[in-house]
Order: sequence, then C-alpha cells, then structure tokens
Amino acid sequence: MTAAPIQLAMHPDRLFSSDSNVVRVAKELYDGIKDLPIVSPHGHTDPSWFGDNKNFNNATDLLIKPDHYVFRMLYSQGIPLESLGIPQQGEQADPAAEHAVDPLDVWKIFAENYFLFAGTPSGYWLDSTFSKVFGFTERLCPANAEEYYHEINRQLTSPEFSTHALMDRFNIEVIATTEGALDDLAEHKKLAGTPWAKRVITTFRPDDVVDASREDFTQNIEKLGELTGCDVTSWHGYLEAIRQRRLYFKTHGRATATDHGHPTALTADLPLDECQALYAKCVTGQASEQEQELFRGQMLTELAGMSIEDGLVMQIHPGAYRNHNQKVFEVYGRDKGADIPSPTEYVSALKPLLSKYGNNPDLKIILFTLDETTYSRELAPLAGHYPSLKLGPAWWFHDSPAGMLRFRQQTTETAGFYNTVGFNDDTRAFLSIPARHDVARRVDCRYLAELVTNQQITLADAKELAYQLTYGLVKKAYNFE
Amino acid sequence: MTAAPIQLAMHPDRLFSSDSNVVRVAKELYDGIKDLPIVSPHGHTDPSWFGDNKNFNNATDLLIKPDHYVFRMLYSQGIPLESLGIPQQGEQADPAAEHAVDPLDVWKIFAENYFLFAGTPSGYWLDSTFSKVFGFTERLCPANAEEYYHEINRQLTSPEFSTHALMDRFNIEVIATTEGALDDLAEHKKLAGTPWAKRVITTFRPDDVVDASREDFTQNIEKLGELTGCDVTSWHGYLEAIRQRRLYFKTHGRATATDHGHPTALTADLPLDECQALYAKCVTGQASEQEQELFRGQMLTELAGMSIEDGLVMQIHPGAYRNHNQKVFEVYGRDKGADIPSPTEYVSALKPLLSKYGNNPDLKIILFTLDETTYSRELAPLAGHYPSLKLGPAWWFHDSPAGMLRFRQQTTETAGFYNTVGFNDDTRAFLSIPARHDVARRVDCRYLAELVTNQQITLADAKELAYQLTYGLVKKAYNFE
Amino acid sequence: MTAAPIQLAMHPDRLFSSDSNVVRVAKELYDGIKDLPIVSPHGHTDPSWFGDNKNFNNATDLLIKPDHYVFRMLYSQGIPLESLGIPQQGEQADPAAEHAVDPLDVWKIFAENYFLFAGTPSGYWLDSTFSKVFGFTERLCPANAEEYYHEINRQLTSPEFSTHALMDRFNIEVIATTEGALDDLAEHKKLAGTPWAKRVITTFRPDDVVDASREDFTQNIEKLGELTGCDVTSWHGYLEAIRQRRLYFKTHGRATATDHGHPTALTADLPLDECQALYAKCVTGQASEQEQELFRGQMLTELAGMSIEDGLVMQIHPGAYRNHNQKVFEVYGRDKGADIPSPTEYVSALKPLLSKYGNNPDLKIILFTLDETTYSRELAPLAGHYPSLKLGPAWWFHDSPAGMLRFRQQTTETAGFYNTVGFNDDTRAFLSIPARHDVARRVDCRYLAELVTNQQITLADAKELAYQLTYGLVKKAYNFE
Repeated sequence: MTAAPIQLAMHPDRLFSSDSNVVRVAKELYDGIKDLPIVSPHGHTDPSWFGDNKNFNNATDLLIKPDHYVFRMLYSQGIPLESLGIPQQGEQADPAAEHAVDPLDVWKIFAENYFLFAGTPSGYWLDSTFSKVFGFTERLCPANAEEYYHEINRQLTSPEFSTHALMDRFNIEVIATTEGALDDLAEHKKLAGTPWAKRVITTFRPDDVVDASREDFTQNIEKLGELTGCDVTSWHGYLEAIRQRRLYFKTHGRATATDHGHPTALTADLPLDECQALYAKCVTGQASEQEQELFRGQMLTELAGMSIEDGLVMQIHPGAYRNHNQKVFEVYGRDKGADIPSPTEYVSALKPLLSKYGNNPDLKIILFTLDETTYSRELAPLAGHYPSLKLGPAWWFHDSPAGMLRFRQQTTETAGFYNTVGFNDDTRAFLSIPARHDVARRVDCRYLAELVTNQQITLADAKELAYQLTYGLVKKAYNFE
Repeated sequence: MTAAPIQLAMHPDRLFSSDSNVVRVAKELYDGIKDLPIVSPHGHTDPSWFGDNKNFNNATDLLIKPDHYVFRMLYSQGIPLESLGIPQQGEQADPAAEHAVDPLDVWKIFAENYFLFAGTPSGYWLDSTFSKVFGFTERLCPANAEEYYHEINRQLTSPEFSTHALMDRFNIEVIATTEGALDDLAEHKKLAGTPWAKRVITTFRPDDVVDASREDFTQNIEKLGELTGCDVTSWHGYLEAIRQRRLYFKTHGRATATDHGHPTALTADLPLDECQALYAKCVTGQASEQEQELFRGQMLTELAGMSIEDGLVMQIHPGAYRNHNQKVFEVYGRDKGADIPSPTEYVSALKPLLSKYGNNPDLKIILFTLDETTYSRELAPLAGHYPSLKLGPAWWFHDSPAGMLRFRQQTTETAGFYNTVGFNDDTRAFLSIPARHDVARRVDCRYLAELVTNQQITLADAKELAYQLTYGLVKKAYNFE
Repeated sequence: MTAAPIQLAMHPDRLFSSDSNVVRVAKELYDGIKDLPIVSPHGHTDPSWFGDNKNFNNATDLLIKPDHYVFRMLYSQGIPLESLGIPQQGEQADPAAEHAVDPLDVWKIFAENYFLFAGTPSGYWLDSTFSKVFGFTERLCPANAEEYYHEINRQLTSPEFSTHALMDRFNIEVIATTEGALDDLAEHKKLAGTPWAKRVITTFRPDDVVDASREDFTQNIEKLGELTGCDVTSWHGYLEAIRQRRLYFKTHGRATATDHGHPTALTADLPLDECQALYAKCVTGQASEQEQELFRGQMLTELAGMSIEDGLVMQIHPGAYRNHNQKVFEVYGRDKGADIPSPTEYVSALKPLLSKYGNNPDLKIILFTLDETTYSRELAPLAGHYPSLKLGPAWWFHDSPAGMLRFRQQTTETAGFYNTVGFNDDTRAFLSIPARHDVARRVDCRYLAELVTNQQITLADAKELAYQLTYGLVKKAYNFE
C-alpha cells in the first residue's frame, strides 16, 4: 500500500531458503540446471499464437483478463468482474461489447490492488515477468501504472515479442497445448513440415465426448460421428471413433499424451453389456448423475486400454468442483476462478483400472491432485508400487513455492524421485512460463539442498537429480525424444 | 521431572525460528508491532468480570479449573477430574460442594505434573503468564508450588489485578465476549455510557435457539417467544424473533458479530414451505437427527441473510464432535476437554448459502476449521474467490506456534494475507490473553521473516503486513472503528 | 547413475537439520542418548532366528526378497517381481523352485537400480547397514555389486553374525515378535529359562481368528477350539478360547501386548444377543462384508475388555487397503508391497469402545495411523484427553525422517510428549534395526533441538525428553520392566 514506487529486483538467491547453508548448496545446484531448455508438456496456451506467430494485445488482455489466478484475488476483495472487463457469457472481449471497459482503467485497478498479491505465486510470477521479460526496475503501483501499461504495449508490438521469437528467447524446447476431441487442430497443421512442428504439439483431451453431464454432450457425440464416420449410436462405434481421434491427434498434432479432467478419480470395469446400456443412456441424455459418473469411470479404463495400444501417455486431473459460484458461472461462464478443490480419493477409485491394466509396463498414467492429503497417504504409495503410475507435479493452487516443497517432502520418501515427471506449467499465461519453470527449478534445488545439508544425499547425487527433475524425467515421462 | 526449581526466563527472541537469519528479521518486524493494542474480537471471558470490575479468586480457580486445555492433559495421564476439583454437573464450584477439594492440593498436583506441558501451547501460555503477569523467575515445580500459589493469590487481591486495571495493563483496546441468544446482557448494560462500553462488547451466539438437538431447545424457543413477543410457533415469527434479538445484541451489547458453532458447515436453501414444515417438526421435538442438521444448515443461510440486513459479521466454527466422552459428559457436563475435531467439508456444504449470498459484498463470513486439511484444499481457494468469505485464524488445538505457522504456510499462497482477519484468542483464560496475542504476533513475524529472507517479499512489505495481521485487518474484518 | 563407485560415509551429523544452530543442539542431545539400549516392542522378525540362534543366508535372501519396501520400488520402475526371485504363491524360496533365479543376478539388478532409493528411508537404512554392519566404504553400484555380494555372504557365516551375537552387538535389550493367535510359540518356548527369555518376546495378534473375511477364518476357529478345548460354536466359548490364548501368549511367549491390523478403526458395543447372532453368521461363513466389519469392531471392544483383565497392552494398526494389486496378490500372495493406505477416521469409529472403557486407567491402547491428516485433527486430541489412549510412532510409509518430523510437529502441541510411546521399528529386516532406531533418535533430537533453539523449551528439558522418547516412555508404555 506504499504509494511511492519501490525497487523491483529479483534477488538472485530467491526461493533458495532462509538458511544460508541451504542457499549455498541450492545455488550450486541451480547454476548447473538453470540454462536447460524448458520442456512444457502440459498447458493451455492458444495454438493460434504459434500457428500464426502472433504478437499479443495490450497488457490488460494479456496479463489480467485470461488469468483467473489474478482476477479471482481481485474479485475476492469485492472488485466486480465487470469492472475488470471480464467478458460475459457469449460476449466477445472486444471494445464494442456491452460491458467493455477501457483496458487502461482495468490496469489501474490492478495496480491499485497489486499489494493483494504479496506472498502469492501470482505476485511472484508477475514481478518476474515485469522484471525479466519487460525489464521494469520499479514495482507496479498506482503511481507508475499508466507508464507500465504503455511500455508493455509498446514492447508487445515489437518483433522480439512475436510468439516464435519468445519461444526462442524463453528457450522452450517443446510446448504442448490442449485441445478437445473434436478440434480440427488447424493451428497445429499449419506448423507441419516446419521446424516448429516438433516444438509445438497438442494433447488429446476428450472430456467433451466423455462427460455426459455437459449440456453439449449429445451434440458433441453427433459431431464425433460426423468427423469419424463411425456409428456413434453404438458403444463399439463410439470407442472406435475415439480411437480415430487419438490417431488424428497423433498424426496432425504430434500428441504424445491425453488429459482427463474428471470430478473424481473413479474408474470402472463393467461387463460389455453394462457398458453398452450405460452408453445408450448417456448418449440419449437419460443417465442420472451417478450413471454419468460411472460412465466417466468406465471411460478412464477404456482410455487406458487405448493408451496401451497407441502409446499416448495418460494424465488424470481429478478433484475440481467446477464452476462452484453459480452466479458467476451464469453470467461469465467457465474458468472464472470459481473452481474449488474437493476431497479426492484414489485408492478405491483407481482399483478397477489398476486391476485391469496397472501392471502393464506399456502404460503410463500420470496422476495429479488438488488434495494434498493424498500425497503421502495414497499417491506416493500407489506410484511407489504400480509400474504404470507416475506422479504429476504440484498442481494449480499448489503450483507455488510452499506447495511444491510440500509435494517433494510428502512424496519423495515413499515414491522416490524417479516416479515423478518434472514440472508442468499448466498455464495459458505464455509470458509467465519462464518464471513458472524457474520457480520449480529453484524449489527443487532447495529441496535437494536440504537433503544434502541434512546429510541424506551427496552433492553429486543432488546434481544428477536436479538434472532429472528439470529435464530428464519430463522427456522420458512424456515420450519426448 | 527435575526436582529443583529452574529459571523461568522468557527469551526475547522466542518463537522467532531456529535460523539466525530469520530471527534477525523477525525481531525487527516484531519490534514494530509488539506494542500495538490488543484487539480481541472473539472469546469467552465472563462479562461479569468487566461489568463488576471483579478481582479473580485463587490460582486454582483462575488457572486450572476453567481451562480445559490444562485439565484435559492432566486427565489424559490418569489424574481423575475429581482430584482436580472439577465440579460435577449441577454442583457449584464452592468449598461446600460434595466433591470439593482443597484448591492448594489441586495446585500441587498441577505443579507435580507441570512437565507434561513441555512443548505445548498451554505450557507456553502458563510460563508467560507466570513470568510476565506475576513476575515469577523460577519455573513452577513441586518445590515451589505452595509459594507460587500463595504469591498468585496475594497479587490477585491487589488493585492492580482488578479486571479494568488488567485491561489497561494488557493494552486491550476492545474485547468481545460471547452470549447466547436469550442472554439479557445485564453485564454489558452496566457498562453503557462508561468509557468501557466500547472496549467490552458481546457477540450474538444463537446456537441455543438454532440447534434442535439440544435438550433445552423447545424450552429455549419458548423463552425466545416470551422475550420478543413474537409468535414463535410460526417460522416467520421465529425468524422475526431472532432478528429482534440481534438488534438487542447490537443495541445493548454493542455486538458487531455473530458466532455459530455447528457440528458441520452444512448450509441449505429450502423453499419456504419446507422451511415451515421443518421448523414445525424441530420445535415440537419430532425432528430426526438429519432434520435437525438440515435445520441448522437452513438457519446458517437465514442468518447470513440477516447479516446482510443488519451488518453483523458472521463467524462459523464447525467441526467439533462435542462431548465425545460420554461418562465425563454425564458426570461433569459440557466443556470438559472432551470435544474432538472431526473431518469437515466446506465446498459442498457451503454451496447453498454461497449460491444465495456469496457474491454479496455487504456480507462478511469468517470461516474457522479444526481440520487443517481444508486450509489449502478448500478454505483458501474459497476465500480467494468469494467476496463474502474471509479466513479466521488457526483455531483451538491449532492455536499454537506450529499450528499458526501451518495456517499461514497453507493459506497464504492461495488466499493472500488480505482475506484473513488477524488473531482470535478465543479464551476464557483472561490472564493468558497477552501471551496468546504475543504468540500470534511472534509467529506471524516469523512467517513474514521467512518470506523476506527467502527473497519472496521485501522488508517494507513485511512491515506493512505485520501491522495488518496484528491490527489493521482485525479492525476492518470485525467492523471496529 | 554415476558408474564409478562413490564413497559411502555416514556423516556423523546426518538428519540433524540443515541449520547449524539446530545441528549443534541436536548433536548434544544425541550424544546423551545414542548409546541407550534398543527396545523394540513391535516388529516382525522371525522367532526362529532367536530360537535357533541362526545365521542368515545370502545377501539377496536377507536384504531384498523379504523387504517389500525394496522390491516395491524396483517393481514400480517396471522390474518384474519374477526377475527378483520373489517366490510365487505356494512356492518355496529355494533354488529348485520353478521361478528361481540366481540370487547374484538379483543382487546385480538391485545394484543397477540402487539410485532409485535416493532420498528414501530404504536407501538410508541400506547405506547404514552396509556401512555400519558390514563395514563397506564404497556405495553399492554396478561396478562393485559382485564384490559386495560375496563380502556380505562371507560375513554372514561368521560367528559374529549369529542372531544372538547381533542382538548383543546391536545392544537390543528386548525385541518383540508378532504371532497369530494359533501359533504354538515353539521358538519362544525354546528360550524359556535362558537369559534370552526376557529379551525375545511375542505379541498376540488375533486377526486370524477375528477377521471373518479371511478365507481361512472358519478353519482357524476350528483350530482355536481344538487348541483350547472351548466350545467355539458359541460366542461365550469363542471369547473364552481367546482369553486362553492370551494367557498362553503371556505364559509361553512373555507377551505384554496385542496387535490388531484392521482395515478401519471401527469399534462396536452391541447387546449380547446381537453379538451371539453376529458371531454365528461369521463362523458359518454367512456374514456379509458389513457384518464382518461390524464383527471386527465388536471384537476390538471385547479385546479391550480382556486387556483390562489381563494387562496386555493393545495396539491398533488400522487403515491399510491390503493386497490392492489383484494380480500380484493372485500370483505372489500377501505382503508384496501392494498394501496402500486409505483415509481413516477415528473419532466416531472408536466411540463405542471409548464409551465403554476409555476412562479406565487400567487400559492402554496405542493407536497408529497411515493417514497423517489424523495426527492433528483426531489422534492428538483423543490421546490428549482419554486416559486409555496413547499415540504410537509414525508408522510404515511414515517411518522416515520427514515422516517422523511431521508426527512430532503435528501431535506434540496437543498431546504432549508423554502421551506418546517411543519408537517401533516394525520390521522383519533384522540387520536394519540399529539404523531404524538411530533415525528415530536423530529425528527426535532434531525436533527437540528446534524447540530449544526456537526458545520453546530449555536444553535441560530437551535432554530429559530425549531420554524419555528413546527409552523411558517405551518401557513404560509396553509394561517392560
């Protein structure tokens, strides 16, 4: 709340601990891995940025409106979403829209409330981006808000800020976007035959044709039939259609992985006739909530079977209560910062799938959680046993310095390091990608440094592990070579 | 278990960390806020202490018998409650009571077992109180027990130990007591028109007329009708009666807040006819346990609506399995250290209330928990989104140095600091209030110092935050001005 | 993954913290207790080792095949159990078995994958054992695997490696094995009248005659009848038979404790006629899963009643989902690293037992958990109140440096130190016992040192507590004198 601008300096030893002994070792580890390329195997950047090598718009459209971490904090303090220019359901985010506001006004509100982000990962990422990407030396505040805004906009139009230029500047070796099963991958196709083809890939996310609770499910299934020519009125034809889409994603989007954002981790392994009957109810909109849940569970098992066939790595992201805020959902739609984690159970939920496929060494399933209590109780013991299971990194609300540290502290002793898969940035905020990966690298080095200074592992071990956590394990886990 | 007395010295840097780097910064932060007035917005001190400016009784009656933290530990080690002079149900705590014991004997048992409190917050608060309030320089032990006892009793009778004198000495700017909905607030009325009126206020706690599982519920509703003249046989009249009592608490007790100690966080938003039918069953004693729970849930939503009307801040304290020990309850009654936390869910439970009122900026709901797993999974994400929600501090068993640190570590990254509300002492142990607030200040300074030395926030930010966590946010949250 | 052997040196200050202030105090505390005898009140060593004063077999049979911590990690990385020589169901672990593999080949696989154990307790225990028991100075790696193997085998045949010699070398004052209710305790009987009698004792584990979901339950009950001459067709006769077996275990195996490995902590207190009917259904194989669960719950209460009579200390180990991996179970049987923790609830589950016996000072129940969320939420509050409850140490997956630290951090403030019972190694890996106890001692000293350097307790207090946690409390809790 200080009115005068204060210095924005990212300390070289940031996030390395308060303890000088740990800082010393962490710094040495970090120096060994900080310049490794970024591998970003899971995220939500817009493929058109890469397909068209676009530049970004103004600071507000880039840094506030698409970032639900940012506007949820502002909203929690009583700032209306309307005043932040968040487009309402069905509106476009353009200046002619009914609820359009001047992006500079939004930026000023943001600056006035920037103090709210103290101690949060968003604050850290934003400071990093302002400092490292745009070169600011004063922290954002009301006094410099307008200058900040115009300077960012100025830089955004420069050739150095084209997406491809930023990919090189950020040293991103490969980035995966995420598309729904019905996507034509037009943007990814544009890159075919160019050097970008292997650097920008897609991920197959079939929730739209698997989650029968969606309003558009029946319609999506119809479209799935049209796209594939399969008879999607039958269970067999539906599965075949999904197989074809997976192949399409491999072929046209160089996909190496699938992603599944279910409310729970429930899996099922029903007899064929029950699958057929359940699918019939779902596709005709007659399934109850329980049946829709069971169908999602059955499909996780089916999709695991397909992964064994086609080699796509499976990512399961359960546990979000989506669109918890009814009014915000009605007015503004999905992804408005109102998804809230729920208690999540894995041990019983995954049993049917694991009983069928869990011992198959050709299957790779990466598990994520929003419920940290499962790290030591369920996920580490499961991943420390089943050949098919690996642990995804600390996710979403837990993608933060303390969250990442808890992930390592609570999983390593039971699952080891080699059942984990490196970092995911999981973001649509392209400019924050270097900062996010840098946080992960720093926190991993800190964790390793604590083990070294606590005399649990040697410095040589720690150096090798720092390499693995940053680069080696992620490439192996996601089949990048 | 050492027989000889040992020095009782509260180290000036206590609770600031083991790490010298952190200690250095924490001390600087603490020096800036340690002398701020105490604001105690939630607690259970006896209003008659303030109304009558009483002195306290002997050391045993003051420090052992009313403190369930203390006697639960003694009881857990096999010391009968009887031998501690805990009055049985219906008995008065007076020397003529059947199970009365000599308070000096109780004090000696306490002294013999004082080693049990090593590493506990009770031990810390007691040592602080002995040292800072009574000036002892040796730790309590069997050898000095009698001397301690008499010296405390001597001091208690002095004018410096009148409640008002202690309020000044402790620098308590304002303290809130808690009274049931039927209370006449006689003690608070005594203070009207005196300078104490704004320093001693009440809190409206309507559990006695909301929780239909209580033996005295029907009787309480009758009394509610008598007090207000409302027709409490009808749902509408019942709600109106509660509205009147809220106004009474605002007028005669300067209440700014309400408090709700439900077993769970369940809320409901039923149609009017179901509310009427449910109330009718509850008030005639015909409701099942599930219906009683549903009624409590409906009432949280009703009470939130009333808060929007009258501006009282709502505090929700769910998750205690009350009176878990059947035999202790039967013999000794409530509040005997046998309340045990239970797993508590908020995301689904609060949905009905939040769907109705959660976006209303005129509503302030402060959430507490006894289930620490909800900090990062549910509470921080909820408070980091809904404008109406704020996070109460670490509560009850978690009101402790490590407990408070976990609260900050697990909520800050998602909710930030500004969705929290400062410290509550929540105590009936008046003499421990300075020690309790001091612990919170020290631990908050430690947490901030860790962020500073880990290069996550600046020292200037930390100083402002230390002020907010100690004083600014609590006054704002509870509408104290 | 480094190819060249690296130095194997157990740092004298290992596990004492990264913080030099803490290390200094921890070392002083550790020096005061490191030479105290090992008391091992709960474990799974083979009584025949002690009865016959055996030497161990080769390195593979000793260190890999029986240690599910070790082979679960290897298996999780895709190494087939078959290639590790894990005997299939019904096979003997002998060279003539169908799936037998050369133990040296297994050892080489182990050495090639030894890097997987970095940062895990298994890695720590193994390094400790190699260094401190066998005197190796290079860490195990592919290059030295064969040399390691033969050197271990050489030492194992020496007189210094007889079980009794190791008992003395390891300074084990007393060790408890665990036997099923039908065991004849032949090995323990061999020790009667020798000085070993008081150093090697059994524990009564009646799951085989209490858990009606076992395939062999009916058969076990029959055998129970034969052994005791009781009419086990009746509830009364069944209880009487169990009473007799408890006496047998006290008499012939010097048992001081019982152990109960139920899926949940459920207890029940049914009327006599319901007990009789439930038992009748269980014993005739007609009980549903729910009835089997209820029966286990009723039996915990019955067994608590028996403990009050005969003084055996009760240990409850709930929360493992046993044999989660169906295929591994079918091929390899139980205890193959596929037991996974589940969410566990204690507050409601234990209420029936506690309502009946919880206030009885003659009862001692030691509670364990695999669900760390219950430490602060349920277990510490329960043990900090009920005279009959004590907290067992961090168990199984949580028997690790960080796991033990979390146990202390999350239980001490509410339960204190004196409601805990020291360390359990819980192992069948005899050679790792010194390392395991040493870890517990180091981590406890670290925790105490943190309290000292954070100015929460004095150094003198910490010294006394270090003694209690290492030696005093365990002897008291398990009635060893």
